[in-house]
Amino acid sequence: MNDGAQLICYADRLAGHLPGLAALLDGPLGDFAGAHILPFFVPFDGPDTGFDPIDHSAVDPRLGSWADIRALADSGKAITADLIVNHMSAESAEFRDWLANGSASRHDGLFLRFGDVFPSGGTEAEITAFHRPRPGLPFTPYLGGDGRRRLVWTTFMPGQVDINVRHPAGRAHLAAIAEVFAASGVSTARIDAVGYAVKTPGTDSFMTPQTLDYIGELTSLCHSLGLRVLVEIHSHISQQLAVAPLVDQVYDFATPALILDALGRGAVDRLVEWDAIRPRNTVTVLDTHDGIGVIDAGPAAGRPGLLDQDEMAAIFRAADAATRGDSGRASVTPAWCDLPHQINSTFFDVLGREAETYALARAFQFFLPGTPQVYYVGLLAGANDVDLWRSTGEGRDLNRRRYSPEDLAAALDRPVVRAILGLVRLRREPVFAGVYDLRQLGRGRLELSWRRDADQLTLTADFAARRWSIAGLVAGRRLACASVEDLARLAGPAGS
Amino acid sequence: MNDGAQLICYADRLAGHLPGLAALLDGPLGDFAGAHILPFFVPFDGPDTGFDPIDHSAVDPRLGSWADIRALADSGKAITADLIVNHMSAESAEFRDWLANGSASRHDGLFLRFGDVFPSGGTEAEITAFHRPRPGLPFTPYLGGDGRRRLVWTTFMPGQVDINVRHPAGRAHLAAIAEVFAASGVSTARIDAVGYAVKTPGTDSFMTPQTLDYIGELTSLCHSLGLRVLVEIHSHISQQLAVAPLVDQVYDFATPALILDALGRGAVDRLVEWDAIRPRNTVTVLDTHDGIGVIDAGPAAGRPGLLDQDEMAAIFRAADAATRGDSGRASVTPAWCDLPHQINSTFFDVLGREAETYALARAFQFFLPGTPQVYYVGLLAGANDVDLWRSTGEGRDLNRRRYSPEDLAAALDRPVVRAILGLVRLRREPVFAGVYDLRQLGRGRLELSWRRDADQLTLTADFAARRWSIAGLVAGRRLACASVEDLARLAGPAGS
Repeated sequence: MNDGAQLICYADRLAGHLPGLAALLDGPLGDFAGAHILPFFVPFDGPDTGFDPIDHSAVDPRLGSWADIRALADSGKAITADLIVNHMSAESAEFRDWLANGSASRHDGLFLRFGDVFPSGGTEAEITAFHRPRPGLPFTPYLGGDGRRRLVWTTFMPGQVDINVRHPAGRAHLAAIAEVFAASGVSTARIDAVGYAVKTPGTDSFMTPQTLDYIGELTSLCHSLGLRVLVEIHSHISQQLAVAPLVDQVYDFATPALILDALGRGAVDRLVEWDAIRPRNTVTVLDTHDGIGVIDAGPAAGRPGLLDQDEMAAIFRAADAATRGDSGRASVTPAWCDLPHQINSTFFDVLGREAETYALARAFQFFLPGTPQVYYVGLLAGANDVDLWRSTGEGRDLNRRRYSPEDLAAALDRPVVRAILGLVRLRREPVFAGVYDLRQLGRGRLELSWRRDADQLTLTADFAARRWSIAGLVAGRRLACASVEDLARLAGPAGS
Repeated sequence: MNDGAQLICYADRLAGHLPGLAALLDGPLGDFAGAHILPFFVPFDGPDTGFDPIDHSAVDPRLGSWADIRALADSGKAITADLIVNHMSAESAEFRDWLANGSASRHDGLFLRFGDVFPSGGTEAEITAFHRPRPGLPFTPYLGGDGRRRLVWTTFMPGQVDINVRHPAGRAHLAAIAEVFAASGVSTARIDAVGYAVKTPGTDSFMTPQTLDYIGELTSLCHSLGLRVLVEIHSHISQQLAVAPLVDQVYDFATPALILDALGRGAVDRLVEWDAIRPRNTVTVLDTHDGIGVIDAGPAAGRPGLLDQDEMAAIFRAADAATRGDSGRASVTPAWCDLPHQINSTFFDVLGREAETYALARAFQFFLPGTPQVYYVGLLAGANDVDLWRSTGEGRDLNRRRYSPEDLAAALDRPVVRAILGLVRLRREPVFAGVYDLRQLGRGRLELSWRRDADQLTLTADFAARRWSIAGLVAGRRLACASVEDLARLAGPAGS
């Protein structure tokens, strides 16, 4: 499949609302084949920025309606929406009703309790075994309306109550949301945080065989509704490789860390190693709303990673230096870990705002097999939003800037942004549906090439010298680019 | 026993350091019989303001030394120091060593683990049964140096790790501190938060029969060293009555709430009811560093209180109104509770800064049997320190003002402060070692009288009209006071 590049964005932060986003995708961002619109449900602006829905089946009226989603789909854009399987907001009608009425509630069973996981009690070893993305323990006490105390599973925040996904009530809840997606023109369900969804005592309950079973079950559900499935798992590469055959797409979260490693060491060996084994049904990224994953390239539970712990630490240090300490201060170290999972920073800032290096990284991403996805702040080569971070205390807000129409217009005129748009246009070429090859040319250099009928296109990328070039023949036209300016020309004049 | 009134203060916030405090107690505060000096150990200014010692057996050198404590004792002042039995700082050498070396540490056993309480696992009901002064669960995950995960009991803050008080290592730790107290002239060990110290599965682990056993054991230890024992327990009155016979003194934390209730309703019935049953070996208070206890007068676990839940709520509402919402915003509602335990505010502010009402409350306190204790901010009729609270986020800091020497000198000149000092001087009279009587004179009025040989002294207190008077014959002199000015004259001229 080559359907070109995908945008990932918050409708509000990039474009105000869904109709605003539609106008962008019909205008200056028209070369994108589709968009992953980050949670646009009720409310889109909760404590976890939409990933804690109060009503997952409703579009927040401040952003628009399901008709806006349907219109985007009808305009030919592939729409990806988040299916938040692990939890919902403790403010949801379902949770409040259950808390008030307990076993008399029609939502009894929907929420996972400590006692569901450990009916006869949990030991210190069992309770501390869980893999956890945040500090602390994964359950929170709640007081029921009947005065009874409940210990509710909360993998993420105390206000995000976990769904008992294997209970009929949990299954029915998620099926109902998937049905709304399918009925509204969503083409891909992005399964959020599914690695944590199944709790199995005696294990760390992350990406266990039981989790894989559940992913298979969820995929069958989505396929029966005509939805494609993209799963989000930050984890050891072996877990990505295990899940990739079960679903339509997985993320390649390892490549961003490996690009930073290659730039840091001036050596491409890990990129080459990863390319030999990486799944082809991937969404490739440099950055997302959650930061730059580093853990994904590292070791886990005794299994070696593409990078070792020292190399990961070096990546964090380099990011820290490039951002004058902001990325280090803004990142969260999870329970039981020495390092954060992710770098909280824009990718542009981590590269010291060097436009040519940034173009190198983006070009490499775009030449990898898979679907290149570009985060809106990355598209706009945004700098860290220190003010927003300070005002909210949420480290990820460094990389979640809000753009006014004026900010956006100014950003779209910048050469570095036009260069990325040039790549987005180039990525529509059919040659990227052809035959792919990667060759290492030296310690710090490699080339990625695509060939289809008479077309051929090659990226030569030198991570040591931080230089790159694209050359080839596409639809009878010679193409040669070696700078941001060259790439920007591919996108046409600003304001086009 | 009549040894007069006691001061309670932070050495640093009132007087800079221990020698500064000694100078006050030898000068303008010379009528106090002694002082409870809030934790002066290393460090006195941790996250829980000294109640999270890193080294409980050492005086923080920024405040002084054990020689300063000894000198205060030698000057005739009775010194009360906190024996913090429940926990210590996670930054302590003991905890760090244990975390690094586990069972090879010589401190193995000193800290209470989840597995010590629940060796074969805890169920949801058992885990949520604990009485808890803070929101959340009472244990915190820590990663050992050997990579092993430990779940450590933390009744208060995650950085305050609980001591296994019934383990030989816990016993030895606390005995060593008590020995240092006795050797340094401390006369009373105030046993901090002892109600939480013993964890007994299947109970709420607060003031259980096992806790009473432990208090008896600790009292024997202190007595063997010549230390008196004052226990700090915020709880239902039945628990105060149960523990009072076991120790030298308990706090009367109910009276402050009952005074506020009497002023609010214009009715003294609850004060009269409480006086009939309250222990006589009490330290009486209006305010402490922890706030104004309301829970102490309320119901608990199905047992009625002196006040019911609505009456407690009315007290919180009145405080909120008097402080323009500050006390409500600054208070913390513990796990499983609808109301905070305490009002975070100065007592003077809760009374709307009405000097005569404040003098009424203080005079009532001073005429009750027991040892009147005056918190330094209360002595100085301080207003809420909103700036300090805002800067630290700690609600109790509203009532923990820092006084510069200039602030202090100015405060000591205020008539309302001199009135309290007048009560402190009056309380030295031997008549308060005589026979006590309380009579209700009407719905809102009562009188408290003392008689010894030819001396007699009566406080008539009208909580409805907010008027009061003191009259009697003491050492052959007639005494009649009915205003702040009258009381202030008892203290002599300002600057004396």
